Amino acid sequence: MIEWKNLDTLSSYKELEGATRVDLAEVMSGENGANRVKNYSVPMAEGYAYNYAAKAVDDKIIDTLAKLAEEAQLVEKFEELYNGAVVNTGEKRLVLHQLTRGQLGNKVEADGVDKREFYVTQQNRIAEFAKKVHAGEITNAAGEKFTTVVQIGIGGSDLGPRAMYLALENWAKKTGNFKMDAKFISNVDPDDASAVLNATDVAHAIFVLVSKSGTTLETLTNESFVKDALKKAGLNPADHMIAVTSETSPLAKSDDYLDAFFMDDYIGGRFSSTSAVGGAVLSLAFGPEVFAQFLDGAAAEDKTALEKDIRKNPAMLDALIGVYERNVLGMENTAVLPYSQALNRFPAHLQQLDMESNGKSVNRFGEPVNYVTGPIIFGEPGTNGQHSFYQLLHQGKTIIPLQFIAYKNSQIGNDVDIQGSTSQQKLCANVAAQIVAFACGKADEDKNKNFEGGRPSSIIIGEEVNPKTLGALLAHFENKVMFQGFVWNINSFDQEGVQLGKVLAKRVLAHDTEGALSVYSELLNI
Amino acid sequence: MIEWKNLDTLSSYKELEGATRVDLAEVMSGENGANRVKNYSVPMAEGYAYNYAAKAVDDKIIDTLAKLAEEAQLVEKFEELYNGAVVNTGEKRLVLHQLTRGQLGNKVEADGVDKREFYVTQQNRIAEFAKKVHAGEITNAAGEKFTTVVQIGIGGSDLGPRAMYLALENWAKKTGNFKMDAKFISNVDPDDASAVLNATDVAHAIFVLVSKSGTTLETLTNESFVKDALKKAGLNPADHMIAVTSETSPLAKSDDYLDAFFMDDYIGGRFSSTSAVGGAVLSLAFGPEVFAQFLDGAAAEDKTALEKDIRKNPAMLDALIGVYERNVLGMENTAVLPYSQALNRFPAHLQQLDMESNGKSVNRFGEPVNYVTGPIIFGEPGTNGQHSFYQLLHQGKTIIPLQFIAYKNSQIGNDVDIQGSTSQQKLCANVAAQIVAFACGKADEDKNKNFEGGRPSSIIIGEEVNPKTLGALLAHFENKVMFQGFVWNINSFDQEGVQLGKVLAKRVLAHDTEGALSVYSELLNI
Repeated sequence: MIEWKNLDTLSSYKELEGATRVDLAEVMSGENGANRVKNYSVPMAEGYAYNYAAKAVDDKIIDTLAKLAEEAQLVEKFEELYNGAVVNTGEKRLVLHQLTRGQLGNKVEADGVDKREFYVTQQNRIAEFAKKVHAGEITNAAGEKFTTVVQIGIGGSDLGPRAMYLALENWAKKTGNFKMDAKFISNVDPDDASAVLNATDVAHAIFVLVSKSGTTLETLTNESFVKDALKKAGLNPADHMIAVTSETSPLAKSDDYLDAFFMDDYIGGRFSSTSAVGGAVLSLAFGPEVFAQFLDGAAAEDKTALEKDIRKNPAMLDALIGVYERNVLGMENTAVLPYSQALNRFPAHLQQLDMESNGKSVNRFGEPVNYVTGPIIFGEPGTNGQHSFYQLLHQGKTIIPLQFIAYKNSQIGNDVDIQGSTSQQKLCANVAAQIVAFACGKADEDKNKNFEGGRPSSIIIGEEVNPKTLGALLAHFENKVMFQGFVWNINSFDQEGVQLGKVLAKRVLAHDTEGALSVYSELLNI
Repeated sequence: MIEWKNLDTLSSYKELEGATRVDLAEVMSGENGANRVKNYSVPMAEGYAYNYAAKAVDDKIIDTLAKLAEEAQLVEKFEELYNGAVVNTGEKRLVLHQLTRGQLGNKVEADGVDKREFYVTQQNRIAEFAKKVHAGEITNAAGEKFTTVVQIGIGGSDLGPRAMYLALENWAKKTGNFKMDAKFISNVDPDDASAVLNATDVAHAIFVLVSKSGTTLETLTNESFVKDALKKAGLNPADHMIAVTSETSPLAKSDDYLDAFFMDDYIGGRFSSTSAVGGAVLSLAFGPEVFAQFLDGAAAEDKTALEKDIRKNPAMLDALIGVYERNVLGMENTAVLPYSQALNRFPAHLQQLDMESNGKSVNRFGEPVNYVTGPIIFGEPGTNGQHSFYQLLHQGKTIIPLQFIAYKNSQIGNDVDIQGSTSQQKLCANVAAQIVAFACGKADEDKNKNFEGGRPSSIIIGEEVNPKTLGALLAHFENKVMFQGFVWNINSFDQEGVQLGKVLAKRVLAHDTEGALSVYSELLNI
């Protein structure tokens, strides 16, 4: 029997609050530190390991986190979710993004259909469409091949697919899987669409309009931009556009599109990279086989989240250590630091995934909670970040938990040997050095050169960024965010906080304002 | 007589701590709110206004901040700085970035030369060089024009110039000022250089190697990458490279470069966009006249920072409100939210500028301070951010001060009218709506749809992003960061926190490790 309880009502949480703190600098020193790095590691799918040696935890704290996982019924709640319970209580919806990449439990029926079958059908339809585009069977009106795909979408229809495209672009070029350039238009700022269109050969471009409801203002506005550009070039927009939308949206059965592929209400935008939202653009850019590998990687990682033993469930462990840092140690932020240029925009995607899911103040029953919830997420790739904000991370007054990600091999494989090491070795040496520098610090009589240490981090280590490992990495964080939402007893799957701004923006555009809003509108010449 | 005192020794700071808190939702409502928006505004250079109506301050708090500005001698310290005092006490250096764009005070001599003259000379040398490249007087060995400039640098040699290039790229294309594409290689990850080089016609590319010391590992490694690529294409690297470095660096007088332009020790990387570091790449990309306008905008804004009246000094006011939020209200973060796609990477630059400058725990005398210092900075352009992390900003448990930036006009000028408004109007309507939604909130019986408000923000409103306004915006934030450093009595101009990681990375590469570092190195296959 599942019980949804607030974190501060759990006895294991009280135990956690009373647990003896770990002196990270001390435990990470000497032989003890070496043993931690060897032992505090959990295998993930696709050859990854989640290593938490440099987190301020010990066996006792992990044992208490294990009790918390049990008392909060985290794995049982995940079971409920993938078996089709209405976990998104606010919007009264099922939560099925894992079902896009595999069947974890029972058959899930909704809207009168088997949902796994529905998602697979959409994948197959996209695959068939993409193959025809690549084969030159679907072309522009002049019978010429499409060479570029442009995604029109915002938020989850933009950040995830864009981050995934950038992560695989060079891998695809290297391995012969590159089919078409992908570009993205998201912002309602007219300069976004204008700049992308100015740099695009629209006659050979296919546009993917992504909007679940078919009513997202930014996306419909940018669709008009694109249609104008196509018409100005003497082209018929309907020959150049496809839609990714829900079956009930006005876009679903419109002659304005070459074809429409479907998503549904059970997958939130920020969890939609493995649905048709990511599927259309990634299958066009890299081929459907690559997208299928990406799904396989995610499915494999999902399976690791079924494990009840916290020491074998990387997402659950990561989630609970994060809760300990946030709620017990009082840390507000988490920095995501991939030592991989391919993951350049992965932190921006995680920023949405995490902050939009868990940036909540009420529990799933709509009651205010008395404890802090989701952290602030930011990050840039290393080593770039080292030359930017790491100064504050090392010597600032605020301690920020760090999530490193690193790979043993580069993607492109081109490298140079300078001063006895390759660039890839230098990259990896830097991430190893940073973990230890943050954890252990280094005493110096000159206080300006003193490093206190005690800055916690974990690292996810993989072989290389490819479709499978990327899928696994994405699923890890989706599952981490889900588990944290369960711990905080919040609904991670709605986003009521974005509504008020939309309502007020409409009032500004209708000139239906008063007070401060009216004066701001004047100052901005609206 | 200047006195450098810790913040917690100032009587005005104690007064500030005791000041009555402002109920932002209340004061921003109704007619009072309208009056605040009208009155709480400070003109900046180049047509900007800094509007702080939606900050949790009132006249009394501003009066106390004015006392603090006086007691901390902020303007006097700025005078010391631009007149050539050794303000960077850690490294015993002058701090002269403002001198690259104007003479604010007395002649400053160092290293036996007039430093203003030195910077102007470098600008003129760069201008002459760029003009010759544009005119086809400096070409590749085959006598063909260069069409692309590639900056090789990291941290301040990358983030600032890259953000400025992206901010002006479309403006330049629109106004006929676009001369060459610019690209950037920064990360030591070999995939960064490989991908940029794979997408570049190296035969027609000129590379700018930027390293003050001539010893930055990432930059020298990437230089080798570039040289290899040039050699493989049958080209002589020396025909394709220029250096931006200090006069004493090994790069200064090397036959490996077509020419070398100089910076010096008195300008930190993060403050170097208006020096030769930004000058070379921006003058090549857009022409020296455009770079000169950028400097003019920065110089004009610097003058506003000389004003002693806090209500007329936007950078000082911004800085002090930030200190109030950080030290009295206890807020750890600041989100930078430009409603302008052109300022896409401006937040990443500010992240370095602010966090590397003020992420410190000791005062300028090397003594630990007992108060918090620089905040964590992150941000993405609006309206994209609205569909990402704004959920947490509106309804999360942590209050994050917001820095909006918006422009009345778009850059490219291409727009569409949908549902009775243009995209530019929609963009501006959204920022106006967000400020009020954050400040005032909206009560709802359904607590999941309830907005508490009380989330403070300020907005900088300008006409459009162009070279002059961009320069002014940059200078505003440089000066804000400087003033905050003065308030906290820290040295904002060194970065000792980046050293330990470098030292340990070298040890990893030399296989001179033990304990945890040794095991991490094994796990990463180094």
